[in-house]
Amino acid sequence: MPLVRIAVLAGKPAAHRAAIGDAVHRAMVETLNVPAKDRFQIIGECQAGDLVYDPSYLDIPRTDGIVMVQITLNAGRTVDMKKAFFAKAAAYVHEAAGVRPEDVLISLVEVTKENWSFGNGIAQYA
Amino acid sequence: MPLVRIAVLAGKPAAHRAAIGDAVHRAMVETLNVPAKDRFQIIGECQAGDLVYDPSYLDIPRTDGIVMVQITLNAGRTVDMKKAFFAKAAAYVHEAAGVRPEDVLISLVEVTKENWSFGNGIAQYA
Amino acid sequence: MPLVRIAVLAGKPAAHRAAIGDAVHRAMVETLNVPAKDRFQIIGECQAGDLVYDPSYLDIPRTDGIVMVQITLNAGRTVDMKKAFFAKAAAYVHEAAGVRPEDVLISLVEVTKENWSFGNGIAQYA
Repeated sequence: MPLVRIAVLAGKPAAHRAAIGDAVHRAMVETLNVPAKDRFQIIGECQAGDLVYDPSYLDIPRTDGIVMVQITLNAGRTVDMKKAFFAKAAAYVHEAAGVRPEDVLISLVEVTKENWSFGNGIAQYA
Repeated sequence: MPLVRIAVLAGKPAAHRAAIGDAVHRAMVETLNVPAKDRFQIIGECQAGDLVYDPSYLDIPRTDGIVMVQITLNAGRTVDMKKAFFAKAAAYVHEAAGVRPEDVLISLVEVTKENWSFGNGIAQYA
Repeated sequence: MPLVRIAVLAGKPAAHRAAIGDAVHRAMVETLNVPAKDRFQIIGECQAGDLVYDPSYLDIPRTDGIVMVQITLNAGRTVDMKKAFFAKAAAYVHEAAGVRPEDVLISLVEVTKENWSFGNGIAQYA
């Protein structure tokens, strides 16, 4: 059910982006009750200048290695679950793809369960 | 008012993407009370490996022909309207673009009516 | 905290897109209580045919110069603040990048404050 959008700067190999996607998914499975097979991701590269970030907002030093992750998912996860997810996502993306933890930005967008169709024109969760 | 994002794998002609956009819009007009002229869509192609899907989640067989559609729209549609939309969207995308119904994934994100400006810096729905 | 997605047609120089991003951010800072350093934007170009708009919906004449802006931000801004933002965003994008005010389309998506991590795996606003 989560739909995950990941944006990075262009210039890294496809394996780098795949490793990021794997890591984000693993963290979701372990902390947000996401089934292992419930994986749908749209990964995109930005040209230089098109991925804009502040290099020090909230005193976190960021670089061009930044990864912006936006996840649409059903409402209902607790704050503690979200905190656990953020921690594991940053750790796993660091381990798997060499991204600095400071460079992992995550945004969650919550929706209701009848807002999904996973194929065949059916609202599978409604 | 809906803003529609559509992601497909690169390699198909522009006419394929246009047919998908047409079909999604037609389904919205027929089932979600969307005016015919209220059409705004951002369509993008993903490189191989960057459009990630599970090939069998919920026992639905998916292929590289997958189409991921995310629609931001005003809250207020009933569950039945959403179900009707999902059904018609999958059918019309299949008819118009040859996409397998199993390969049509849809995510809805609902917002409030004062969250839109359609030009001229005015919140036309507020 | 806001995550800003901006879509334009391909073919304009990078400086055009940067000017649009600057203008949107300035308007957010002045009207939505967004800190000046709280800037995160994903800007993308669409190929011809992939940025779909109605040329006259709500009697607003639109052109291929259209700019579609979608902003994910914390809930809590008043309707008046949103109206002020829309007005300034259209004006500043016009001034800075020569985009017609009619061609500035904006969509806001509101979330809760625990839905963000700005790096280091921490939910800084929770």
